[in-house]
Amino acid sequence: MSNFIEISEVGPRDGLQSIKRIMPLAAKKAWIDAEAACGVPEIEVGSFVPPKLLPQLADTAELVAYARTIDRLKVAVLVPNLRGAEDAIKAGAHKITIPLSASETHSLANVNRTHVQMLDAVRAIVALIKTLPPAERPFFEGGISTAFGCTLEGQIPEAKILELASALMEAGCDEVGLSDTTGYATPGHVIALVQAVKAEVGEQNLTGLHLHNTRGLGLANVLAALDHGITTIDASLGGIGGCPFAPGASGNIVTEDLVFMLDAMGFETGIDLDALLKVRDIVTEALPGEPMYGFIPEAGLPKGYNLSGTA
Amino acid sequence: MSNFIEISEVGPRDGLQSIKRIMPLAAKKAWIDAEAACGVPEIEVGSFVPPKLLPQLADTAELVAYARTIDRLKVAVLVPNLRGAEDAIKAGAHKITIPLSASETHSLANVNRTHVQMLDAVRAIVALIKTLPPAERPFFEGGISTAFGCTLEGQIPEAKILELASALMEAGCDEVGLSDTTGYATPGHVIALVQAVKAEVGEQNLTGLHLHNTRGLGLANVLAALDHGITTIDASLGGIGGCPFAPGASGNIVTEDLVFMLDAMGFETGIDLDALLKVRDIVTEALPGEPMYGFIPEAGLPKGYNLSGTA
Repeated sequence: MSNFIEISEVGPRDGLQSIKRIMPLAAKKAWIDAEAACGVPEIEVGSFVPPKLLPQLADTAELVAYARTIDRLKVAVLVPNLRGAEDAIKAGAHKITIPLSASETHSLANVNRTHVQMLDAVRAIVALIKTLPPAERPFFEGGISTAFGCTLEGQIPEAKILELASALMEAGCDEVGLSDTTGYATPGHVIALVQAVKAEVGEQNLTGLHLHNTRGLGLANVLAALDHGITTIDASLGGIGGCPFAPGASGNIVTEDLVFMLDAMGFETGIDLDALLKVRDIVTEALPGEPMYGFIPEAGLPKGYNLSGTA
Repeated sequence: MSNFIEISEVGPRDGLQSIKRIMPLAAKKAWIDAEAACGVPEIEVGSFVPPKLLPQLADTAELVAYARTIDRLKVAVLVPNLRGAEDAIKAGAHKITIPLSASETHSLANVNRTHVQMLDAVRAIVALIKTLPPAERPFFEGGISTAFGCTLEGQIPEAKILELASALMEAGCDEVGLSDTTGYATPGHVIALVQAVKAEVGEQNLTGLHLHNTRGLGLANVLAALDHGITTIDASLGGIGGCPFAPGASGNIVTEDLVFMLDAMGFETGIDLDALLKVRDIVTEALPGEPMYGFIPEAGLPKGYNLSGTA
């Protein structure tokens, strides 16, 4: 299906880590269950970080185990280091992403590691994965965060991004991704960087973007990326989340709005938008008063609009 | 300048007609003054409709006269009929737009006129314009509203839009425009309709779009249009406004966010964004408590970002 765009729901990880209150495990399970039932193909259910740093995600191992029982769902997690990867593998994650911040200043602030130290961790994780029988190996992505600029360093030179992308692939990652951690991306920059990274690491080794909507350009950036071989887009239900360590950064792309845009453009997502809109209730009931975003949830579908999945 | 995108500020018309309170004339003048000083090339300052229908815009004639005194500013107005056009010409507007709703149901609800009656009005206005010396003739645009769908009728067949576009040009308009009155437009639809209308009336006779952000796709729709020969985009400071007669429709494209996107993509707008952000104060002081939108005003420019006009 060349027309298929894979939406990766990151709300349970990227959304919840930005919210102080802890969502009860039962609500998280209900949320993941409900989104998977809507046809969402991949959900990032949590992050294997020390519970004292992110108590909101302390139940990630249980969530992975639970999500693994859901048919056809790809269960993704974030890990900051080898220890996290060990936990992720033990729990049974299908996909592991390690974020490598293009801004070394941000990397030090976020995980207290230099680029060299992060790449060492990547190699150690690859070595660990290789000890597993091939059928049990998780997909391992190197996610380059602050790829479109950093609130501390400003723009990161493209040469640095390309160097890191190469280094991640050489270290043994299955793929690299680009993250607009700070919401600095603009359509022209998305096109230029996607083209440059694909030229550096190979067309097939960059397929996914994690974009924010901090400056209102989230969907315009997706639109630009779709024309340049990007087929996986991260988004968060109700747009919750962002990066708590990048001051001023907030606002994931809203999954509901993204599904609408893709559907209206004739892309397949496999997601039932009407059903997805109802999943918001689970989040708002579990986190009353927490702001949820999204235009489609507020304005509704255009009169007479037939969702491709339901027409 | 092939790289120039003309932003037409419609806040004083489209924005203020949606707000019940009446902005004092002095504040309107200050707003128009300030935006023109930022480099905004065209401002739709009002609408020549009966004051009892839209008392918010009752001072349009005075505003046109005032705005005419501002160097290099193109002064645009909306007119619903011949009477409005007479007033617009008397006041000295540079550009007159008559909205023709593709949805006849909406046309009847909005101005109580059928398509035939509206086209008669267009011909009468053209006849009036032709009585003027060439140097004094205003530019006359036929704006097809609800072009991307109507909250009453749903989708309008493309054949109907093409028929109306042709009829407007045959009646003597200088150009047609397309308005997404209801916020139904999506990037694929924008591309398809722009291409179809250009093929129908000629490449040079459709250059402008009036898009809303009701479903969060405003800037993505602009991005799509830029690739297809659209060079004029309407927007509203703080995103105020929408169509008060189309239930549920709201939210113009935010001028500030649009300028940022275009600047970041290397387009010229002639607008000083830093200065534009300060103009919001004039509106909020004149209409305290009125919601103003925009991502750039909230998130600020990316660290180290150099505006092309100020670098």
